[in-house]
Amino acid sequence: MISKENLLETQQRIQAFIHRTPVLSSQLINEMIGADIYFKCENFQKMGAFKMRGATNAILQLSEIEKGFGVATHSSGNFAQALALAAKLQGMKAYIVMPSNAPQVKKNAVKGYGGEIIECTPTLEARETTLTEVVNKTGAVFLHPYNDYHVIEGQATAAMELIEDHNDLEVIFAPVGGGGLLSGTALAAHYFSPDTKVIAGEPMGADDAWQSFQKGEIVLQTNPQTIADGLLTSLGDKTFPIIKDHVSDIIRVEEEEIIAAMRLIWERMKIVVEPSSAVALAALIKEKSKYKGKKIGIILSGGNVELTKLPF
Amino acid sequence: MISKENLLETQQRIQAFIHRTPVLSSQLINEMIGADIYFKCENFQKMGAFKMRGATNAILQLSEIEKGFGVATHSSGNFAQALALAAKLQGMKAYIVMPSNAPQVKKNAVKGYGGEIIECTPTLEARETTLTEVVNKTGAVFLHPYNDYHVIEGQATAAMELIEDHNDLEVIFAPVGGGGLLSGTALAAHYFSPDTKVIAGEPMGADDAWQSFQKGEIVLQTNPQTIADGLLTSLGDKTFPIIKDHVSDIIRVEEEEIIAAMRLIWERMKIVVEPSSAVALAALIKEKSKYKGKKIGIILSGGNVELTKLPF
Repeated sequence: MISKENLLETQQRIQAFIHRTPVLSSQLINEMIGADIYFKCENFQKMGAFKMRGATNAILQLSEIEKGFGVATHSSGNFAQALALAAKLQGMKAYIVMPSNAPQVKKNAVKGYGGEIIECTPTLEARETTLTEVVNKTGAVFLHPYNDYHVIEGQATAAMELIEDHNDLEVIFAPVGGGGLLSGTALAAHYFSPDTKVIAGEPMGADDAWQSFQKGEIVLQTNPQTIADGLLTSLGDKTFPIIKDHVSDIIRVEEEEIIAAMRLIWERMKIVVEPSSAVALAALIKEKSKYKGKKIGIILSGGNVELTKLPF
Repeated sequence: MISKENLLETQQRIQAFIHRTPVLSSQLINEMIGADIYFKCENFQKMGAFKMRGATNAILQLSEIEKGFGVATHSSGNFAQALALAAKLQGMKAYIVMPSNAPQVKKNAVKGYGGEIIECTPTLEARETTLTEVVNKTGAVFLHPYNDYHVIEGQATAAMELIEDHNDLEVIFAPVGGGGLLSGTALAAHYFSPDTKVIAGEPMGADDAWQSFQKGEIVLQTNPQTIADGLLTSLGDKTFPIIKDHVSDIIRVEEEEIIAAMRLIWERMKIVVEPSSAVALAALIKEKSKYKGKKIGIILSGGNVELTKLPF
């Protein structure tokens, strides 16, 4: 189990290698929702997403011998870039297993951060086989994108900073995919602002976390369909128990609600966020009548979006 | 002529009604250009552009009797919104003459800020006739979008803040349209950081400022063609002399260079800027070999862009 001390040590450990991201507000969005909202802008994090925090923490906890062999993961998303950059900053190698059909722009980003890409056919089985081969061949340490206590500890630091900046938040909203950010956020609130509720937003078309939350056990994601491409994964056996114990609610949102929230952030706050980031605001907007007059934090998880493929 | 004291008084006068905008940097853009660049983010200004500064200053200099009659201008761009919002914040009326073919989104924005729109046929003559009628009928005070000393003083405060935050800039780049921002920036550098050069970026397809600068007298804009829709106007008899005396150079850039610079800012800095904002960075990139290792300020003028009509 992750302790309060683990989180405080994590914050110290990683701070030289990440940005302390700003917290922004929009008077217009506040008026529209009738609440005071503080957006933690992880879209301004290094490589463009909160994943940099967890990747950095996981890498820094390796032994010197392990560091010499490098790290490996499977991801076509932000964790791939985060691990590549976090490894580069420590002078380490990062091996990233990606499906051959991953967008070229994502492959380029990983290469740009110095990661070595190993392509595999786009099936779960091929991905795992390829990863095993890479680990066996290189001796690299496998780091899971979210189902890893050191990764969760790192992700928790975003909410820790938000709580340091605003110590009277009544609710914090975060998106949920594999649950790394959500479980970290929930632990941060539990230890450092116990009166603050943590609520998740999740796409209706990828609602395994909501289903798991209802059923009290992990329900796997099957055939997720959503524009929020950072939220396609299933919960893990390390993230789910934390979520079950420390998250108050999961609110599901439709695709149009995600796109509308994303557009609101772009137009009114003049910042670039990816669809997954907008899911948390979409959830708040959906149930805004419950949050009138409250002081609310929202974690904007990232800003990596392909500008030629916008939904508006 | 605008004095140093005028600028200091302006900064005091308007500060309660505007945002002090942040200054951001991008390590990746710095590495790409080989210089230290500090972006003054006027896209985060109230209503989304630096125009709020000049509009506010001009309104606050009116007498109480004038304030009772309200203000009027002709603009389909950011100054229309700025004047509407600045007037609203002082409890005043704002009459905005707009061509009937102006985009609905721009009309809605002005209305959203409480401005009263008077439509005219889209010719220079109709615009001036309509404005005269409005002024005669309402008694409102006409405020020019840029060729006005109080407006120029207000625009100067963006560079004043940038210089306060970074007092060792070797160059400041700003875009030039009618010259309000550029002349204000040049005066701010002249008085508060005299060793700092001021350089303008201008679209090749709307290069009246460059032509005027070469010829030493105002050359009017004719049939401008550029995506940078904030830079379509001609210099004025109040902005040009300041530019002639205090600006070091005007660099013209092609449309593709503007779009590439805009995309770079969106992708790497994760912020929304309008094409006019990107013209200054495009100019720096075009002549980057001259600026290796230098410390450079860039004024990002605004972030009002229609998301459904992006150039990428």
